[in-house]
Amino acid sequence: MSYSDYKEQLQKIADINYSSALLSWDQEVHMPPKGAEIRARQLSTLAGVAHDMLTAESFGVLLNALKADTSLSKKESKNIALSLKDYTNRKKYSREFVELMSKTISQTFQAWQEAKEKNDFSIYAPQLEKLVKLKREECTILGYKEHPYDALLDQYEPEIKTSDLTMLFSDVRIQLVDFVKKIAEKPQIKGDFMFQYFDKDTQWKFGLDLLKQMGYDLEAGRQDISSHPFTINFNSHDVRVTTRVNENNLHEMIWSCIHEGGHALYEQGLDFNDYGLPSAEAISLGIHESQSRLWENNIGRSFGYWKQNFPLIQSYFPEQLKNVTVADFYKAMNLVEPSLIRTSADELTYHFHILIRFEIEKALIEGGIEVSDLPAQWNKKYKEYLGIDVPNDSHGVLQDIHWSHGSFGYFPTYSLGSFYAAQFLKQAKNEIPTLESEIENGNMKPLLDWLRIKVHGHGKYYSAEELCIMICGEKLNFSHFMEYVKVKYSDLYKL
Amino acid sequence: MSYSDYKEQLQKIADINYSSALLSWDQEVHMPPKGAEIRARQLSTLAGVAHDMLTAESFGVLLNALKADTSLSKKESKNIALSLKDYTNRKKYSREFVELMSKTISQTFQAWQEAKEKNDFSIYAPQLEKLVKLKREECTILGYKEHPYDALLDQYEPEIKTSDLTMLFSDVRIQLVDFVKKIAEKPQIKGDFMFQYFDKDTQWKFGLDLLKQMGYDLEAGRQDISSHPFTINFNSHDVRVTTRVNENNLHEMIWSCIHEGGHALYEQGLDFNDYGLPSAEAISLGIHESQSRLWENNIGRSFGYWKQNFPLIQSYFPEQLKNVTVADFYKAMNLVEPSLIRTSADELTYHFHILIRFEIEKALIEGGIEVSDLPAQWNKKYKEYLGIDVPNDSHGVLQDIHWSHGSFGYFPTYSLGSFYAAQFLKQAKNEIPTLESEIENGNMKPLLDWLRIKVHGHGKYYSAEELCIMICGEKLNFSHFMEYVKVKYSDLYKL
Repeated sequence: MSYSDYKEQLQKIADINYSSALLSWDQEVHMPPKGAEIRARQLSTLAGVAHDMLTAESFGVLLNALKADTSLSKKESKNIALSLKDYTNRKKYSREFVELMSKTISQTFQAWQEAKEKNDFSIYAPQLEKLVKLKREECTILGYKEHPYDALLDQYEPEIKTSDLTMLFSDVRIQLVDFVKKIAEKPQIKGDFMFQYFDKDTQWKFGLDLLKQMGYDLEAGRQDISSHPFTINFNSHDVRVTTRVNENNLHEMIWSCIHEGGHALYEQGLDFNDYGLPSAEAISLGIHESQSRLWENNIGRSFGYWKQNFPLIQSYFPEQLKNVTVADFYKAMNLVEPSLIRTSADELTYHFHILIRFEIEKALIEGGIEVSDLPAQWNKKYKEYLGIDVPNDSHGVLQDIHWSHGSFGYFPTYSLGSFYAAQFLKQAKNEIPTLESEIENGNMKPLLDWLRIKVHGHGKYYSAEELCIMICGEKLNFSHFMEYVKVKYSDLYKL
Repeated sequence: MSYSDYKEQLQKIADINYSSALLSWDQEVHMPPKGAEIRARQLSTLAGVAHDMLTAESFGVLLNALKADTSLSKKESKNIALSLKDYTNRKKYSREFVELMSKTISQTFQAWQEAKEKNDFSIYAPQLEKLVKLKREECTILGYKEHPYDALLDQYEPEIKTSDLTMLFSDVRIQLVDFVKKIAEKPQIKGDFMFQYFDKDTQWKFGLDLLKQMGYDLEAGRQDISSHPFTINFNSHDVRVTTRVNENNLHEMIWSCIHEGGHALYEQGLDFNDYGLPSAEAISLGIHESQSRLWENNIGRSFGYWKQNFPLIQSYFPEQLKNVTVADFYKAMNLVEPSLIRTSADELTYHFHILIRFEIEKALIEGGIEVSDLPAQWNKKYKEYLGIDVPNDSHGVLQDIHWSHGSFGYFPTYSLGSFYAAQFLKQAKNEIPTLESEIENGNMKPLLDWLRIKVHGHGKYYSAEELCIMICGEKLNFSHFMEYVKVKYSDLYKL
């Protein structure tokens, strides 16, 4: 039994899992509606096959033998340790549970799509109830010390606890709420010109320009349309993004392209030769999100980024943008205003959207609230934290895809990503004095090269905390985000 | 061990196989080029998993037990018998052979794409040699009585023999060559107006109109672009077609839409409830092709079909078709002229293209010729049978996808399909006196309903020969095709 046996076995499992990923991609992007019923069972069967391979006794024997193999390199040993952890966790699930979960998720996703389209939460509720019941069961199966929600968080952000997040979001709330209040007292930025008619195909072209400029390799990826933008990979040479284009709102396409582009660069930067192994997988969703957020907010919403790109978009839309300056455009990108939809929120009030979802998920998983309470809870919290009335469920509790995918514990990683991003970019600027002027000239290569070396190339070799310490010399520190926010928005709003 | 165990097991195998089908569809329609390497191994792994499930000893025990179960219905017993035949055949392959074949096919397909694009047979040849070697090995593995090629034919057209086809093509050649010669002596039809500029998007729309008119359910299917049109299904509620659109040649889109539409109607008409079982699978490629050919040639190239559809296409292209009458259009659809490309050939000389491929395949599999001989053999036969010079390999030996997919023995089923189609439609017209007038009015429902009842709904319950006898009261009879040809073309060419 050798390391190459391990590699072969894990890569076969990857083949199955990435086949499932393609079925999921197709389901959201291309599949005709009647295909849903059988697609659900196909995904369920593939999940079952992968589960059987991952939890085979012989695989456990192999992993335990290699754990004791002192001839392995550090990277190899790390892979074995991570796979063994995964094996141990997965042995806790029965095959029946895995297949039932997969099938329930497919059906819940279909119900969510229909419910959102018809603005009818009742179409979604019975399916979501089944799914929440399964997720609660999953917490018990996996086990936890403090809070059942910890078991789910660990799948997305290993080692983080509900109590850590409760503290972090408490800091966020106190500091950010205060700061947003100050902004609200100042004269507001105007960005109406973003809501004119912008032709779909021209927007699409501009989005591809931005992706190419970032360094996204279209020979190893493609972009499609979906109702909720996402990035998905089948190996580091096939990493796909989706976007949405709203002909009456220029924001949506721009931010989804840059955001998903950031995710995609991470995946394209993973080690192709270690396909299927932990050393070629992303560390955590928080670190993944640090990449998308860094590109979207810290770069994409910076003045320098638009020095090159504003003249370009102006050339695509000369009529609509003829009286707009790059400074107007920069301001419109950074308009702070409480709003209904998470994905189109500004980078400050965005974290209130996450806060709401974190509180609801935590309560839903511990049983403090039920699915039937969701619309009321949602609307109440939007009033409380953002001061706005939710007009209907399609624009409220039905807006996000995540719960329909069984992704509870996922949302907090978005905020973690923003905080890591601010910290990482500060470090990059320290290390590369010309970074900002390169970006102003439309040259993203120095930044991408830095991210490839510092983040992408390592796969899971470091934990999120280890990586942060290695890059920045300290753990995640929220003050870097607040510092970035204060400098930028004090200038924008003349605080 | 019950029939429901059998159904469950076979449907799981179908889940794996149809997942592979989606990976293949994606590979030809959407996959970015760098994705090819890993895609090949993903397909190979899935093929291996399906092979293991299909050839599991326990599955053989189950099938043999159910073979003796007298409580099963006729349809159930037939399913068991067909699955047992399949099981016995598949037990002849090793898992290694199946995985190697799958991987080699993926790589050969990639090589073919590049070779065709670059007009360079040498890029393709080394891969194709590997594949032909494997196919010859496969003949030995499967076994045969008369000719190794029989073993391959049987996979596409069960029970047919190389000797049957040799006789059939001899008849075809004698009768059809004579007839085409008579046509060549007559004044030729003009159809230049088909080769103007026709906008891609408008062609696409018209193609969708034709598909909808045929009764193709777009809620259970979709159309995409690919270099070689094909139909693929993941269950009878998700049956996809592809087409190609040439902006300077109206023929390509029209015939690929109607042809693939005919295939897709067959797949959409299979029993959804028996997903994965023989009773919900097409009988043979010959019968499949009878459906595509019936729609494409016997209906799509008939005068009546264009009575409704010509005014429609004229409204899409008023400038290009302003001086064209429906009679001109009908004639242009049926212009007989030897040409280079099989897929754009007329319905008479088409069979010479098949004849050439049949002779080459037969010789290649028996070892009479080698891959390196292919371009020369190809060009020689095109000169001999069609009287034309092949200008380059992209328009010659590289034109078809089939060999790159390992599909040897497939081409003859195209001709079988045409012959079945003529025979079936003659019968339909006998049974439905109003059929032609309904079609003239754009109502395809009576024909589709008849095909659903006579062909689609049965799945594999009857063999091709049994089905033909059941529908027409006799076996496949080439004279019906010649009769159809003589009536139609004698009128068109004033013979």
